[in-house]
Amino acid sequence: MAAPVKLYGPPFSTAVARVMVTLLEKDVPFQLLPVNMAKGEHKKPDYLKIQPFGQVPAFQDEGVTIFESRAISRYVCDKYANQGNRGLFGTNPLEKASIDQWLEAEGQNFNPPSSILVFQLTFAPRMKIKQDENLIEQNEAKLASVLDVYDRRLNESKYLAGDDFTLADLSHLPNAQYLNGTDDGELFRSRKNVERWWGEVSSRESWKKVLEMQSPPAPKKA
Amino acid sequence: MAAPVKLYGPPFSTAVARVMVTLLEKDVPFQLLPVNMAKGEHKKPDYLKIQPFGQVPAFQDEGVTIFESRAISRYVCDKYANQGNRGLFGTNPLEKASIDQWLEAEGQNFNPPSSILVFQLTFAPRMKIKQDENLIEQNEAKLASVLDVYDRRLNESKYLAGDDFTLADLSHLPNAQYLNGTDDGELFRSRKNVERWWGEVSSRESWKKVLEMQSPPAPKKA
Repeated sequence: MAAPVKLYGPPFSTAVARVMVTLLEKDVPFQLLPVNMAKGEHKKPDYLKIQPFGQVPAFQDEGVTIFESRAISRYVCDKYANQGNRGLFGTNPLEKASIDQWLEAEGQNFNPPSSILVFQLTFAPRMKIKQDENLIEQNEAKLASVLDVYDRRLNESKYLAGDDFTLADLSHLPNAQYLNGTDDGELFRSRKNVERWWGEVSSRESWKKVLEMQSPPAPKKA
Repeated sequence: MAAPVKLYGPPFSTAVARVMVTLLEKDVPFQLLPVNMAKGEHKKPDYLKIQPFGQVPAFQDEGVTIFESRAISRYVCDKYANQGNRGLFGTNPLEKASIDQWLEAEGQNFNPPSSILVFQLTFAPRMKIKQDENLIEQNEAKLASVLDVYDRRLNESKYLAGDDFTLADLSHLPNAQYLNGTDDGELFRSRKNVERWWGEVSSRESWKKVLEMQSPPAPKKA
């Protein structure tokens, strides 16, 4: 068996979790290498050699280094096309294009308000940072408009890019999971098709496995 | 000859210009269909059928409709792989991954501060909207950090993804062009490698053609 690929970063990071769930869907064994962001390890020279922006994740596969979670996910789907979930990034250029447009919609429309809300509603309180109410309100309005478009789309098709679960749906999991643990979960539950979709995508075995890996390990019995 | 592909949107839009320069690099004939955003045409039901977020551009090729400028650009490179600039999106999965990571860096790191600065410094004054000095300052600092990373990268390689001009460089053209017409051009000129790179990418024939198409046509002689 080939050496497992390496993924650098903490599993609680939404961008790291995005790649983890891709690797699990594609049955690609991986080694998760911790990067202690609280200690600033992501800004140290050795790490900057593999991720020049000092962000997580970074990814290595047989000497190839790639950064940016969506680029890593596309690469994993292309390189491991014939294993795991084969339709995750489509099987022809047209399917790929349909998946890619919704993956870009996630990156450009869903992610900006969502990542701000995840930080404000989930991380800021843990880090004892004061929440910015104006910023929260503005971004809830932006996210609501995006979810309105999704609700209409998901009235026509089971998943964002068509009848099958793909990278486009997958890419929403990390931010949507955090948001569904806050009052903003109502933005998902109040839209019938989004609610149905979220129920389906969040119950994938691959995603449940990521959630387990995000939790602290249970103490072992003596 | 096949019917030209259709691109919907005004050429002054950075996202529309991104697709125009891709089509020109790939020698793909296209028909530009105006969308009058001042009149709200991008929010009308007919347009929302092809671009559900009410944004520009939208793209049609033989009955296929795609939105999101970077997804359209990747599709054009894949579908028209054997014409025009053949290396624009690489010729093997590894080259593609290297290009894709820098294309994602553009979308996720360069574009957010740049698009805010382009709006604040270029469009807001034309639209008689008051500029937000705090927002400008914050985003100039963010852009400066991104360009610091680019400057180090461009010290090692001629272009972002390697020795050749690719989709990763191309994707920066529209925002960088507007910024270089403002005082923020100094952020590019003050970094030796970024300045050299900008000189090279902005003088591509394809890009000069886009700039011509963005200008009002010269009055015809009687």
